[in-house]
Amino acid sequence: MHSLQFTAESSSKGVVERDFVVGEVPGVLWSPASGADRAPLVLMGHGGGNHKRHPAMAGRAQSFVAGCGFHVAVIDAPGHGDRPRTAHDEQEVAALAAARAAGEPEGPGARRYSGYLAELAVPEWRATLDALQELAEIGADGPVGYFGINLGTAIGVPLVAVEPRITAAVFGLHWPDDLAEKAKQITVPIEFDMQWDDEDIPREAALALFDAFASTEKTLHANAGKHHDVPRFEVDSAARFFARHLGRVLTSPA
Amino acid sequence: MHSLQFTAESSSKGVVERDFVVGEVPGVLWSPASGADRAPLVLMGHGGGNHKRHPAMAGRAQSFVAGCGFHVAVIDAPGHGDRPRTAHDEQEVAALAAARAAGEPEGPGARRYSGYLAELAVPEWRATLDALQELAEIGADGPVGYFGINLGTAIGVPLVAVEPRITAAVFGLHWPDDLAEKAKQITVPIEFDMQWDDEDIPREAALALFDAFASTEKTLHANAGKHHDVPRFEVDSAARFFARHLGRVLTSPA
Repeated sequence: MHSLQFTAESSSKGVVERDFVVGEVPGVLWSPASGADRAPLVLMGHGGGNHKRHPAMAGRAQSFVAGCGFHVAVIDAPGHGDRPRTAHDEQEVAALAAARAAGEPEGPGARRYSGYLAELAVPEWRATLDALQELAEIGADGPVGYFGINLGTAIGVPLVAVEPRITAAVFGLHWPDDLAEKAKQITVPIEFDMQWDDEDIPREAALALFDAFASTEKTLHANAGKHHDVPRFEVDSAARFFARHLGRVLTSPA
Repeated sequence: MHSLQFTAESSSKGVVERDFVVGEVPGVLWSPASGADRAPLVLMGHGGGNHKRHPAMAGRAQSFVAGCGFHVAVIDAPGHGDRPRTAHDEQEVAALAAARAAGEPEGPGARRYSGYLAELAVPEWRATLDALQELAEIGADGPVGYFGINLGTAIGVPLVAVEPRITAAVFGLHWPDDLAEKAKQITVPIEFDMQWDDEDIPREAALALFDAFASTEKTLHANAGKHHDVPRFEVDSAARFFARHLGRVLTSPA
């Protein structure tokens, strides 16, 4: 087992940001600046083609840490961010770019590549969680949530299906093809985001994936608009969802 | 035009509650105890077989007034609460009770009766809104929202379709049969609640009604559970929806 090594630290607006590595996998941990007492941890998966420091990740982390007092951790998916791309990664990325340039649907390629990435990423996330829980401010028995849409769902659904330490999750924007069978194994509370006018993911496909979760508490949020138009208020909603399920009271109106 | 007559007043936990009548129609207006400055108004429609003082109405009013600083008004639907039942009302209520006793679906009777009630209730709501806007603490040009699920949607959809003063609405738990054509005339922001395992309203029917709204900003909230299991956090969500659209900042985490 690899332990977690911090490689950089900075602080802004009450949030401490620390770069880390666990083995070969680089990540960022955002934490409340005040207080070393144990707080819930939210693991966050980034979208396809993005990385751990994408503004969407940093913005959500700011909201969750400052608003809810959580720790938030993001790691780069294989072939993303600061990680090397293999020949296979290059090939899949080129195929996606070619589909986009030709005006063809990216879905088939995105599903194939994200399924490949998920097989690599699930054990990386579990090792990262092992290492994070060694930290005194997180601890081995604190509540853990997962938040990831898009590629973050392709990786998160198989992760949550096998990882009993994760007790609440926000998913969305994906197809049921490779994920529905895994979703049927998930029973923890779920919030699921879809876009009602998604140009890539048919409405029926998104509804089928939501339907597959075995969770007795699950909520679908479908917003008018296209794939990339998920409204910002869904991040606030996710923060309240985690506050309900991970047991931390909101410190400001989210 | 009838003006609004107050008939009783009480106060509790920072909320003033005033009974009123507009012509033959009785209602309740809940308002913030402090400050006579103008504040947004939320009109609230009660469910079938309920009335203006049902605990669900009083609870939501408390949340909206204390949490958001809104005024909240509810009136009794025809044949409900303090209003007389006609022979036709008695007949429809008996038909619903008979269907329930026989284990038959209540949907057909509920749709027929609620369509009848909506035709009576829409002009009553418009006259009530006229009278409420005569009050100094509400005013003629302040923002107005509407919140009603179930019978509150059967009445609210045709109301919002013809009432330009209402600029945001929360609906849910109804069939598209009589409402989809009216929903197509609605363009204001909408939040729509459905139950994923509703025993009365088929999933496809609820999705079809949500789909019918012409609003460019609309959000579907589908929760696991049966018809009467709408989670309490949807009231908090509705409060935040109105705070976004009616322009009042939340005064406490909702």
